[in-house]
Amino acid sequence: MSPSNRAYWFAGGASGEFRVRRMTAVIGEPLSEVARVTYLDTPTLPVGLEMRWAFRGVTSNQRYTTKNEKEALVARSPALGRPWAALILIKKSDAWWNLAQDERREIFEEQSRHTTIGMRYLPAIARRLHHCRDLGTEQPFDFLTWFEYQPDDEPAFEELVAALRASAEWRYVEREIDVRLVRD
Amino acid sequence: MSPSNRAYWFAGGASGEFRVRRMTAVIGEPLSEVARVTYLDTPTLPVGLEMRWAFRGVTSNQRYTTKNEKEALVARSPALGRPWAALILIKKSDAWWNLAQDERREIFEEQSRHTTIGMRYLPAIARRLHHCRDLGTEQPFDFLTWFEYQPDDEPAFEELVAALRASAEWRYVEREIDVRLVRD
Repeated sequence: MSPSNRAYWFAGGASGEFRVRRMTAVIGEPLSEVARVTYLDTPTLPVGLEMRWAFRGVTSNQRYTTKNEKEALVARSPALGRPWAALILIKKSDAWWNLAQDERREIFEEQSRHTTIGMRYLPAIARRLHHCRDLGTEQPFDFLTWFEYQPDDEPAFEELVAALRASAEWRYVEREIDVRLVRD
Repeated sequence: MSPSNRAYWFAGGASGEFRVRRMTAVIGEPLSEVARVTYLDTPTLPVGLEMRWAFRGVTSNQRYTTKNEKEALVARSPALGRPWAALILIKKSDAWWNLAQDERREIFEEQSRHTTIGMRYLPAIARRLHHCRDLGTEQPFDFLTWFEYQPDDEPAFEELVAALRASAEWRYVEREIDVRLVRD
């Protein structure tokens, strides 16, 4: 991987370093069931990879966090490499994307406490956000969010996703797939 | 074009509906001189197009405008189709992208009056912004901004770009190419 690479792929199929523990369509249409998932830090997908689906995304600048929030997040955010993982694929509605920046920030943080909730579970729940919306071709999801944690922290992770799913921001989520994984 | 298409290409070469009046490297390395520019509303570039360069970008949600600013912009923004045009290609520094959202907004609007300045020249100077930074492969520019106006409004356009280039935001611009065009 180039040091400046920000592009990643998630491919689901018969092989890959992560075994699927379960897949849930939380909102909207399900995604084909797969046995394993590959997480690749390359802008292109290798030829010959056997898979049922593949989604790509790029890490990018943060869109809503303030300087103080960003500094607190960076200070508490651990490196990746933990044994359990979750891939949460999300599509938001046109109504969300048509809001102005201050309206989205208001819903995201002042109403929904998105960063505040995530911060509560740091450093236990590591997180990396991949954006898909501006890749240049139509994508089924807007975000691919990757989480990693120790098996003992799965109850904490359930709390985290439950809090977000109950938030005002989630009224704008049209599709959400939750894939739970283990590195093996 | 699909009604939901947000992807566009600009290709410079010997052919294209826009004739180049002049090209200027305002900041940083110049771009190869071309005679004409094509502006395509398709996610892929046609095969066999003769060109020296091609850049793509996507229109997206606004990143800094508030609800009030957005409503004022929408109310005053005209359709495209005017005879003169400018394509301004911009790359911002890592220092810009590493700032938090509130810091970028502060520089963009409270210090630099980016939206306020643009609004002053509406509806005379039409504008469409294309984003390149999150396309998934490394891009030479972060933004491709397209402007259209009547020939008589070129002095107003010069004022607009001069005001932005003198702003605090422009300290974060690493490369800027200004291509002036006429539809013929």
